[in-house]
Amino acid sequence: MEICWSERYARRTGRMSSSAIRELLKITEQPGFISFAGGLPAPELFPVEEVADVAQRVLREAGRAALQYSATEGYRPLRELIARRMTDEGVAATVDNILVTTGSQQAIDLVGKILLDPGDAVVVESPTYLAALQAWNAYEASFIGVPSDQRGMAVDLLEEIVPRQPKLLYCQPNFQNPTGVTLSRERRETLVDVSVRHGLPILEDDPYRQLRFEGRHLPRLIGLESARQGDHSEYHGNIIALSTFSKILAPGLRVGWVVAAPEVIAQLTQAKQGTDLHTSTLDQMIAYEMLRSGYLEDHQQIIVWTYHERRNVMLASLAEHFPREARWTRPEGGMFLWVELSDAIDASELLREAMKQQVAFVPGQGFHVDGSGHNTLRLNFSNSTSAQIQEGIARLARALELVRDGLEGREEHVRSTPSNHVAIKRDLG
Amino acid sequence: MEICWSERYARRTGRMSSSAIRELLKITEQPGFISFAGGLPAPELFPVEEVADVAQRVLREAGRAALQYSATEGYRPLRELIARRMTDEGVAATVDNILVTTGSQQAIDLVGKILLDPGDAVVVESPTYLAALQAWNAYEASFIGVPSDQRGMAVDLLEEIVPRQPKLLYCQPNFQNPTGVTLSRERRETLVDVSVRHGLPILEDDPYRQLRFEGRHLPRLIGLESARQGDHSEYHGNIIALSTFSKILAPGLRVGWVVAAPEVIAQLTQAKQGTDLHTSTLDQMIAYEMLRSGYLEDHQQIIVWTYHERRNVMLASLAEHFPREARWTRPEGGMFLWVELSDAIDASELLREAMKQQVAFVPGQGFHVDGSGHNTLRLNFSNSTSAQIQEGIARLARALELVRDGLEGREEHVRSTPSNHVAIKRDLG
Repeated sequence: MEICWSERYARRTGRMSSSAIRELLKITEQPGFISFAGGLPAPELFPVEEVADVAQRVLREAGRAALQYSATEGYRPLRELIARRMTDEGVAATVDNILVTTGSQQAIDLVGKILLDPGDAVVVESPTYLAALQAWNAYEASFIGVPSDQRGMAVDLLEEIVPRQPKLLYCQPNFQNPTGVTLSRERRETLVDVSVRHGLPILEDDPYRQLRFEGRHLPRLIGLESARQGDHSEYHGNIIALSTFSKILAPGLRVGWVVAAPEVIAQLTQAKQGTDLHTSTLDQMIAYEMLRSGYLEDHQQIIVWTYHERRNVMLASLAEHFPREARWTRPEGGMFLWVELSDAIDASELLREAMKQQVAFVPGQGFHVDGSGHNTLRLNFSNSTSAQIQEGIARLARALELVRDGLEGREEHVRSTPSNHVAIKRDLG
Repeated sequence: MEICWSERYARRTGRMSSSAIRELLKITEQPGFISFAGGLPAPELFPVEEVADVAQRVLREAGRAALQYSATEGYRPLRELIARRMTDEGVAATVDNILVTTGSQQAIDLVGKILLDPGDAVVVESPTYLAALQAWNAYEASFIGVPSDQRGMAVDLLEEIVPRQPKLLYCQPNFQNPTGVTLSRERRETLVDVSVRHGLPILEDDPYRQLRFEGRHLPRLIGLESARQGDHSEYHGNIIALSTFSKILAPGLRVGWVVAAPEVIAQLTQAKQGTDLHTSTLDQMIAYEMLRSGYLEDHQQIIVWTYHERRNVMLASLAEHFPREARWTRPEGGMFLWVELSDAIDASELLREAMKQQVAFVPGQGFHVDGSGHNTLRLNFSNSTSAQIQEGIARLARALELVRDGLEGREEHVRSTPSNHVAIKRDLG
């Protein structure tokens, strides 16, 4: 009997959506294509020689350990180093506060695994990080979207949401993916205040923190909460904080980490054990050496300078080519910028036209939990050269013009039909 | 408000058990300790120099790709190579049949994620691989244990089980963990027959296949099924087959793979995307080079010779030191051997005594889904030298003697009390 697999799948698979856009974007790897669609760091900045040297040293000096099974919690010297750095930053941490994960994405998945029963609500910014929604859809979570503006999540709305007893609040405070927006200092205080007063767990996902090229570093949520709690030798609070080597070293290594209360780390560790036993020992040892030696601190400056320049070029190109009614964010760091077009434009339609012009982006609707954002787009500026950004934005503006022309054509068509399409016309302003 | 985390956890965490034995065994890393408890390959056999050379070459020649995000499905040349090898072995496969995973453990987790709703039944050998139970407990599965003997799972019992509509049958056909037993040729045929007639999905987990040191290779389940189906360009059957580089190259790299029908691979890929985005690119490229160059084929011979010798030493030591009523398996490959003691012996009590003698093993009860096996133990022979095995088995026999002496003391005690404890006496024979 041949199995019809789709009849056998668990209920949760119904929530794992195959993205048509993901399929569409596969062709962007063709030469000549300019893609603002991905979320890739600039590979030309990867410290390839240094990683090769460190890998060599790690393998020659501790090869057996580097290739053997290792503890689910992570490579101990790496956990100790992270704990010391956190302590230096004002969050008292010991190794028991630290779990190494196979990239931050695994931490997002594991947090869902230990916290979310079907139907449990997670508060997210809207728009929010797509792969967090993907991960938690697999636990059949529900989402409560909180709108955000130039200062981040509208935290004043949280008092209304708390009575709905969300299990978790998810937030990227710095240069959020997809909008590039940073949560303001005041809102951070408010958010921590809500968490402490109502016992609301927060997942502080902070992959881009070190990629700030403008303005001053703002305190971590976990730091603000620690400061309120006073002196402790070990963090025991409401916040689960995620970081990663993906943006300051290399994402191909898949090494991230969690800082949280020891009992949360213990539960996440148990969940991780059944999931992949442990994170690549070799990758952890490479990441550890790169962090310990201080190399990453210098290296990250080069990344910051480069992304700063690329953001500037993208801002200038948008100002030069995009229509007056379009709006975009001005990220102070990170890798993404967010564009809002006139309400009449459908970003999926724009993408189809853009692909013909050999330029790509991600339509913004998928990042929203309520289906809004049809006229928004996410642009990545870290993975294209300045010249590519200039050319790509010009192409995108051309595609936008063509879509607008098409709309006007349709508008003509609407005008000539005496029907109920007036609403469309009105929308076109 | 400080969060009481244990009140917030998802229901499934109640099934994630923290093993007291795992905690106990942490002290086995002390010098002088001989541990048969772990499941570690022999680290002195890791091809450290070769991995260092290959890592060097991969990074110098394709460093940017090796450090960048990569496809969730896995490194394409690796998938192509695995597909070709499978085709050569009679299972027609294309890249669409292959998913690279972060070790086999991740594949076990992902199969649970796409197939198992709470309460769904999985048929397992009893005893079975502990971490599979751990992974599926997180999906609140139920388990149907099928006893096994020297020829593996008692497949004749399956006809009675099929009406209970299990979602999946899980099986390690070669040198099973924990028993070391191999599923016979006839039973393989029967198992595939049951799967085909009833449309029962099988998860064929085969981490030790290449570690055969005695007897002839038996066909894979997925091979037997393919042979029945006749000519196809692409596998579309009922079996999901898992393999790994952990035992033939190095487990610290965390690279395994799945062979399955393309629609299953697509669903697993979606699930993996939310779980860790992809497996370490560097680790995959290293594994690919080691496999492609043919190095692993030669290297695996060294592993096989070494484990063969170690198994022989363990068998001889058991015969020399263990009491007559004890029984053990004679694995034809792999890393584990299974001992059954007289019914009066409690393996957990034996472990406590053994730890005092500085030798460790894993009590067998935890591998059973029905709480049986109190008098069984799993012994690992891959991670100790022959001298350590001789000494360790002697120590273990001493511990066993002490436990038996203690029991006799208690038996005396039973004799002197005129109670209902006669049953205990009879068990002692």
